[in-house]
This record gives sequence, structure tokens and C-alpha cells, in this order.
Amino acid sequence: MKKGSVRKIQLYDTTLRDGAQTEGISLSLADKLEIARKLDHFGMDYIEGGWPGSNPKDIEFFKEIHRNPLKHSRVVAFGSTRRAHIKAEQDPNLSALVDAKTKVVTIFGKSWDLHVTDVFKTSLKENLAMIRDSVAYLKSKKLEVIYDAEHFFDGFKSNREYALSTIREAAKAGADMIVLCDTNGGGLPSEVKRAVQAASGAVKVPIGIHCHNDMNLAVANSLAAVEQGCVQIQGTINGYGERCGNTDLTSVAAVLEHKMKMPFASKIRMNELMKISHFVAEVCNMPLQFNQPFVGMSAFAHKAGVHVDAMVKNAKTYEPLDPALVGNQRKFLISELSGKTNILAKAKEFDVDLGKESPEMRNILHKIRELENEGYQFEAAEASFELLVKKLTGKYHPYFDHLGFRVIDTKEEKEGVVSEASVKIKVKGEVELTAAEGDGPVNALDKALRKALKRFYPVIAHIHLTDYKVRVVNSQAGTAAKVRVFIQFQDEKKSWQTVGVSENIIEASWQALVDAVEYKLHKG
Amino acid sequence: MKKGSVRKIQLYDTTLRDGAQTEGISLSLADKLEIARKLDHFGMDYIEGGWPGSNPKDIEFFKEIHRNPLKHSRVVAFGSTRRAHIKAEQDPNLSALVDAKTKVVTIFGKSWDLHVTDVFKTSLKENLAMIRDSVAYLKSKKLEVIYDAEHFFDGFKSNREYALSTIREAAKAGADMIVLCDTNGGGLPSEVKRAVQAASGAVKVPIGIHCHNDMNLAVANSLAAVEQGCVQIQGTINGYGERCGNTDLTSVAAVLEHKMKMPFASKIRMNELMKISHFVAEVCNMPLQFNQPFVGMSAFAHKAGVHVDAMVKNAKTYEPLDPALVGNQRKFLISELSGKTNILAKAKEFDVDLGKESPEMRNILHKIRELENEGYQFEAAEASFELLVKKLTGKYHPYFDHLGFRVIDTKEEKEGVVSEASVKIKVKGEVELTAAEGDGPVNALDKALRKALKRFYPVIAHIHLTDYKVRVVNSQAGTAAKVRVFIQFQDEKKSWQTVGVSENIIEASWQALVDAVEYKLHKG
Repeated sequence: MKKGSVRKIQLYDTTLRDGAQTEGISLSLADKLEIARKLDHFGMDYIEGGWPGSNPKDIEFFKEIHRNPLKHSRVVAFGSTRRAHIKAEQDPNLSALVDAKTKVVTIFGKSWDLHVTDVFKTSLKENLAMIRDSVAYLKSKKLEVIYDAEHFFDGFKSNREYALSTIREAAKAGADMIVLCDTNGGGLPSEVKRAVQAASGAVKVPIGIHCHNDMNLAVANSLAAVEQGCVQIQGTINGYGERCGNTDLTSVAAVLEHKMKMPFASKIRMNELMKISHFVAEVCNMPLQFNQPFVGMSAFAHKAGVHVDAMVKNAKTYEPLDPALVGNQRKFLISELSGKTNILAKAKEFDVDLGKESPEMRNILHKIRELENEGYQFEAAEASFELLVKKLTGKYHPYFDHLGFRVIDTKEEKEGVVSEASVKIKVKGEVELTAAEGDGPVNALDKALRKALKRFYPVIAHIHLTDYKVRVVNSQAGTAAKVRVFIQFQDEKKSWQTVGVSENIIEASWQALVDAVEYKLHKG
Repeated sequence: MKKGSVRKIQLYDTTLRDGAQTEGISLSLADKLEIARKLDHFGMDYIEGGWPGSNPKDIEFFKEIHRNPLKHSRVVAFGSTRRAHIKAEQDPNLSALVDAKTKVVTIFGKSWDLHVTDVFKTSLKENLAMIRDSVAYLKSKKLEVIYDAEHFFDGFKSNREYALSTIREAAKAGADMIVLCDTNGGGLPSEVKRAVQAASGAVKVPIGIHCHNDMNLAVANSLAAVEQGCVQIQGTINGYGERCGNTDLTSVAAVLEHKMKMPFASKIRMNELMKISHFVAEVCNMPLQFNQPFVGMSAFAHKAGVHVDAMVKNAKTYEPLDPALVGNQRKFLISELSGKTNILAKAKEFDVDLGKESPEMRNILHKIRELENEGYQFEAAEASFELLVKKLTGKYHPYFDHLGFRVIDTKEEKEGVVSEASVKIKVKGEVELTAAEGDGPVNALDKALRKALKRFYPVIAHIHLTDYKVRVVNSQAGTAAKVRVFIQFQDEKKSWQTVGVSENIIEASWQALVDAVEYKLHKG
């Protein structure tokens, strides 16, 4: 943050901690590890893994991550200052932080006098001691310490001098970074600027910013803080977080790089911005926000006739940025080289070599565009994609023929609906007809299909459905609306996802189920 | 905009024009009229109805709105400056504007030299003449003229003097308001400030702002412009619009009122902010953004234990604003007075008088909370709500008993799925069993149910399903995920919506179908 030197911006991700506070998000340990590895690959400087003092799942996370360390990002354990009137070394929360064995820890403390008196119910003086002792204790353990000044901006408005004294205390005790938090998300950019200026005057330690989006200003406030000299931005992928969420790091990263031309502390894979956004959304099982800046499916979609007309003359006329820079694409372009490149790369992952100009390639490209046009999406359904490529290149040999099915949903007076499915398949010349009951038509179909196959392929007994998602694709079409179904299966070793699309939800689910089972049989 | 006088902010809504450019939004004439009336009620100063020169549907809109005028808002017809090298009075686009017979028109013209040379392929000088002539012509027709300076901020960066000369031309020709547009959404707040300052220095006419959200900064940029003296903010409800959308007027209005304390030109029904947001989303059939500031279902939801704990001590600790001010509510509060008030008011609409402290009221409140907890939503399903209240207060007498149904989805080899439903009902002691085929299980159920009822209640032949929506409520629950189904029916006179929720999509759809049919029979 030293003015004059070249300032490099650090990205600090708290998707796994603050992001997990989102209504509707619930991450398993496996989910958290998977997200952490993708964030590492993307180039995050810091990844906040969780709060070991509040959550046993988070303790497991740190154990796992040490067993198989990240390549680049620094993993951070999060916690709070010590409790009032005890010694730092006796505080169980601080011990849990040390026990997490990360090289970096973040602790939050109170900057707002109201919180000290009304929530902690302690004195302003004791709060300063809590900050000082906690930071000093963690520094004595040779840790890099980031101090999150919770509610700094509200505190600054309520009692400016006290708020500044809290961060002075953290700085004196040795904090490596002081992060000003707009915890309630109520700040305006002009207020953030004034408070950051005052904080920069009060401490010599580098300053970071942590915003929430309650005023729809989290990105603007974070960038305003950078303009005032902040070096670290805390946020989450897609802006997940409690209430209206945190600063969306995908937007912040793109604006910093492409508009503000700020250098980053690490190499960021900016051309995978859309990929990481969609990946995290899928793991969190959150709907993609279609118009999310930079990464939304509609972010570069042009509908107005006058725009499209002008864009053909010069793309700059209605586009603030080349979409390829963030891994996205223009919507009205039909033939695009990057499409081919992606397919080639993906096919190589499962050992299919396609020539860029081969007839097979053209055939696959044509088929994928046709399917995407119908509403299919393969980014989160790689098993369906692999099967498709292998079928089109003659590398898949069918394990069974599905001859048909029937699902019967019956409702008797006062009773709930009972769903029963029968499935007819043919394996090596033999016809098998089996039936099963389930919770709803799809569950019944799944059970019947695997029951039918089990006799021929016992391996099928070891897989099970772990996730099922339905999204309406073109909801404005009323009864004829298409639905897209994603299904996830897993066995002892791995999980895979498939997709189906139809106007009939049963048909869409069936397609995805069949793909999931064929994929398992094919991969063994 | 005159500095010194009390500045009042005007809200200018372009949901019906720019909002309709959103991928996935397609508004019928009836939709547009319905939205316009709600915007009028909300207190918008201006409502841009459409572009009569580009779209016959928009011509109809203006005809209809004159037949049955709005109470408060000024309706605006939108168009462009005249074409190059013709006279304004010969330009069909300008004639269409005059023919729309509104008192206010908005025209856009080019501020960016690149657009003049590369898109219009005309001279910079001719473009100035096009602006001047078009504004002067519309002023000669005694119209209030708003001039939208398209791409003003890009133009200002590319050729500052030329961009300023375009708005000087519009001002000299008599424009009543000059609106600076960040058409590509690429501006930063600091850039917007500088350009607005320069524009304010160049013209004496009041200035407005029109932003797009490609950098996730539309709200911040609009507010930055207001800080520099702008008096009009153009935007859309929920930020709908091409690519990443326009400025979200719901956020802007709330921040202006509750944080910046700016006075509005009109009385805004701020406590209906959430209502108008959700209403427009429903009519546009767009998913609600759960974490949308102020109006999202999660905007005031608290999950973190430490937060909830502190909020019980003092709500200010983790809430930037009282949610009731924008018609929203805290999520962890269970008993809330406003709930009762809403129910009382709605019940009165259909002539049911409930005492605030009556046992019936308690019973209804309890039932609604229970259902909302299960995933029901009545805001967009008022027919289901009315039936529920009438059933719980003994004011509904059943027209039929539904004894059960069966839906069979059959797939034969290589064929699509065929869905067939049979429904058993009892009317006046008589049992009727009927079957029908349909496109998918729900369509089949709908046909069979109405076929069975038709013999007893011929009126049922005149209704039909116009919309069907499915949303997964708790998608993280995998196969046991609940779905919420909304169904809309209409007859010659009106339309009504109902809701159903279940883990079984067939059951959820059936509930909504039965409600829709019962509602028609009840209302006659």
C-alpha cells in the first residue's frame, strides 16, 4: 500500500466461509475441497477455508488440505478475537485457529462501539485489549495475521476516533494486513473513500476491503477502496454470502484488469472467469444469474436489431469488452473458432483425437450447437458430453437397448401420489422387464432401470443418484416449456453428471438417467 | 438541476422498452399495460412505453393507454433522431413518434464519433444537424422532449469536444432534458463524475443519467451522477435489459430515499418496492433473484449464529435498513404484525372480514406460515390464497370431490413419451371417470379433469391454461427436492393463478390444477 511503489492487488476468497452463509447453500467437505482446488488453479492469493472454532467440518477441511496441499493459494483459517476477560492463550477459539496449522489466519474484532457495548457487553477499553492480545498471541506463533475490522464503516460513523483506535491496536500488535469491513453493506462509495483515507492515515500496515452488497454497491465500494490505496479485496465467487451477498470477485477481478488496468499480486486465469463462476454455482447448486456481469449466459447477448446491425460493422459499438477475455462469448455469433478449440481440448481429456478440420469435428460441432440450441448444456454434464463424442466417433459400443418404459402416478382419495415405473431393456438378445416404486416418477424410473440392468452388470449396484436438478429453459412458453434436467451419480470412486432436455419432464429425466448408467458401464 | 435550489429526483422507467430487450423476456400488449398501471401506482414520473417507429405492438400500446389513461405517470414514446440527409418532417420514425400522441417523447442521438462514422456512415456535421432538426421538429409539435445522448461516456473519452457539442445542439434546439447514456455499460464512477461535470458546464438544461450494468456498476454510476447534479435516473425494475441489464430502479430508489435522503419529484410507494419487483418478475416470467438488494427473498435473511444472536439484542447490529421500509421482512422472525395486516387487507378485497385478533385470523395465519414454510408462495397465486381463506372460514362449498387420478407416461422404443391421464371425481353423488392424452403428464391431467367436470359445469369449457411454471424450492435436497408449480388459467374476462408444492411434481401440479378449476366454479 506504500504510495509510490507499484501496488499489486491481492484477491482474498471467502466463498467457503462467508459464501457458505448464503440461504440455500450447504457445502459438504468434498464440495469445499473441490472448490478450493479450482480457486487455487484460478490464481486466488488467499482462500479462507472456514472457522475451525465454530464448526467441526471446517477442522476436517484443514486436515484434508494439509494432506494434499494447494499449489499456489495461501489457505486461511478464520476466527474471532479472544473473549472478554480471559487470556489469549486460554481462548479455545484462538487455540482452534493455531491447531488448524495454516500459515495465515484472519481474526475479526469489533470496531463499532455499539457492538462492544450491546453485543459483547463489555467496555471499549477491554475490546482494545482483546484485539491487541489476540493479534499478538497469533503473531507469537509465527503466523501471518490478517485483521478484519468488522463494521468498520458503521463504527467510523458512530465513533470515528474509537474505530481508528481499534485498527491502531491491531497494527501495533503486529497485524500484517488490516481489512476494513462493511459488514452490514450500508456504505456508499463516498463514505468508503473517506473512511479508507482516515484509516490509511492512522496505520502504516497495508489495508484491505471487505464489502457486502445490501445497497447494490459492493463492487463499487471495493473499487473505491482500491482507488484510495487498498491492496486486498475480500469477496466471494458470484457474490454469494448472507443477505444480499458479498463483493462478487468475478466482477471485481474483471474490472480491475480490463478497465482499471491494475496489476495483480498473482497470475489470474482471467480467461477462465466464466468457468469458475459456473463451476462454483453448480457445486453450490445455485441458479446461474443469467445477466451476471462478465460471466452470465446473457452478458454478451444482443437482441436489439440496431445493435446487432452495428456490431456487424464494428464489435466495439455495443460491447464494453471482448467476451473471450473472460471466457464468455457473444450470443449472436454462430460460427466461432473457440467452440472448436474447446471441443478438441475436452475430447483429448478422454483420449479422443479429433482433427480441427476433420469431418468428424464438423459433425460434432454441428450436433452440439443443435443440442445447445434445444437447451442442452454440457459444461456441467461432462459425462453426457463424453458419451456424445464417443457415439459420434464410433468409440462407444452399446451395453443395452432400452425398449421402453412406463411410469404410473396414482392418487387415491386423501392419499399422496404413488409412483411406479416399469422398464423394458434388451441385453445380449435377452429382454428384461422390471418394475419399481419410488418417491415421484423419476426416483421410480431410476430404481427400475438399475434393477433391470443389475442381473447383467452387477457393477450397477454400486452407483447411486446423489443430485437431481430441474430448470425450465424457455419458461415463457407455458405448457410447452422445455425443462433441462441434470442428474449426478456417484460410486465409491467418483461422481459424474448428465443432462436431458425435453418438453416432457419424464423424457428429460430418462435421457439423463440412461446417460448416467451408460457412462458407468462404459468407464467400468 | 440548478444548484442551490432543492433538487428533486425523477424516476424514469424503461422496463417496457429497454427491459423488453432482455434475453428471455417477451411481453404481450396485455403484459405491458398491466406493468404500466403498476408503475403508475408505484409513483414513477415517466414510463417509456415503447418505440412506435420500430414495432406495431408499441403503436397499439399507446392507443390503449390513451383510451384508459394513467393516473400519475407521464407516458413516453421513444425513437431516434431523423435519418441523414432528409427533412425531419419527412422522417417516418419521427412521424410515428408524433402519431403516438403522448405529451412526452424521448429521442436518442449519437455522441460517439465512431458511431457517426462507422454505423451511420455520415459526417460529424450532419449528425449535429440530425440532432438539432429532430429536437426542433418535436418541440414545434409542443411536445416535452427528452434527449438521450447515446454512448455519451464513450464519446466523451474518444472525442470530448464533439460529444459536448452534440448535447449543446440538443439544448439549443429546445430539449427539456439531456440524458447522458452509458450505453455499453463500460463506465467507472470516477469517469461518470468527470463527464457529468463537463456536461453540466456545457448546457443549462437539466441532466439525467442512463446506465447499463456490464461492469456491475450501474447503480453506483447512477448515484455518482446524482451527486454531480443529475435530476433524472433512467432504469428498469429489477435491472432488466440487454446483456447485463440497465440500472435497477428498485435499488436506486431505496438508496436515494434511505441512505442519501434525496427528495423525489413524486410520491414513491417505497413500502411496495418488493411488491412491484416481484410483480414485474412474474409478468416477465423471470426468476426472482434471491439476493437482490432490498427486494430479494433473502435480502434480510440471517443464517450465521453470531448474527442472529446479536440481532435479538439490537436489530441494527446486522441490518443496514428496516426491511419493512421496502416492504420486505426479516427471515428469522416468526411472529410479525405486518403479516396479519396483509392478510386482513387481502381478505377484504374478496369480502371476507376477519377480526385482527379473532380465532379465525390466528388459524389462517398459522396455516399460511405452515404452508410458506413448506415452500408455498401466495403473492403470485392469489386465487389459491382466496380459496384457502374461504375454506378456513367456511365460505367455500365444494363443487366436486376428487377421488383420484392416474397418469401413465409410456415410452416405446424410438418413440417420444406419450402421456395419458385418467381422473375420477364425484359430483352430486355421481362418480365420473374420464381419460385424456396430452403433451406431458400435466397437460394430460388438465385435459382429463376438465373433461370430467364439463358435463356438470359447462362453464368449465371456456377456461384454458395459459402458463405453467416449475421452480425447485430446496434444490440441494437432491431427489427429495420440493418443486413449486404455478399455473395460470384464463377465460374471456380474467386470468388467475394458483400454486402447488410437493416432492412429487405430479402432485404439485395437481394441487394447482384443482385450485384453478375450483376458483372458476366458485367465482362463476
